[in-house]
Amino acid sequence: MNPYTIFAEIVAGRAPASKVYEDEDVVAFMDIRPMTPGHLLVIPKVAARELAELDPVVGGKLFQVGQMLAGALRDSEVQCDGVNFFLADGVMAGQEVFHVHLHVIPRTPGDGFGLRGRPTSPPRPDLDYLAASIRGALGRR
Amino acid sequence: MNPYTIFAEIVAGRAPASKVYEDEDVVAFMDIRPMTPGHLLVIPKVAARELAELDPVVGGKLFQVGQMLAGALRDSEVQCDGVNFFLADGVMAGQEVFHVHLHVIPRTPGDGFGLRGRPTSPPRPDLDYLAASIRGALGRR
Repeated sequence: MNPYTIFAEIVAGRAPASKVYEDEDVVAFMDIRPMTPGHLLVIPKVAARELAELDPVVGGKLFQVGQMLAGALRDSEVQCDGVNFFLADGVMAGQEVFHVHLHVIPRTPGDGFGLRGRPTSPPRPDLDYLAASIRGALGRR
Repeated sequence: MNPYTIFAEIVAGRAPASKVYEDEDVVAFMDIRPMTPGHLLVIPKVAARELAELDPVVGGKLFQVGQMLAGALRDSEVQCDGVNFFLADGVMAGQEVFHVHLHVIPRTPGDGFGLRGRPTSPPRPDLDYLAASIRGALGRR
């Protein structure tokens, strides 16, 4: 048994969930607090609190199952016209359940969902400076 | 040459980009309209307008590169405390460039980025009904 969260209970079959997909590594089910009708969560069966703990092979599967669900949502009674993926890694990013989960959010006209923020247009040297710093950090991993 | 977008030009090396990562399948670079400093895009080298056109193997790699970048961003001068992944599939989902791209968005206190929307709490039978419809659509794929 996994100590972390309600999602571990869902994986174990001890908590209710409206499942749409399951295989040996991944489960997908309806979010009980949907941003739009048909909002799904895709989670790894082996608990990982955050991306840094998640086996990249399973990470790749989360995305692949998300791709499949994006198609199925369009073909289902959800009848969406588009899909957003969203993932929050860390408290500062809005993560609330500490078991990695990919949100798959169907979109229809006037659904009220979207991003909040103020994009900027930094000069190229600023972008290059941060890019060099990020490449450096990648090189140290 | 690929007719679709500026991202194809970046892949081909004909348009400028502040790259942070590149391998045989994937390129990652700084978004020129960042929601927060250090905002990155991860794209496939082989153009795919939307998720339905994207080779799932490469889809999985987008996520894996995102995982790696989420760690590197924390270790870089971006010094973020969290990271969001975001992806828009289709005009209705806010997609503007029709070459699949995964946003990797570093988060720091007071950065002003987040989701907009009104989550609801549907009764379980409503969740089960849509789940059955989505499972049906998956089964027909």
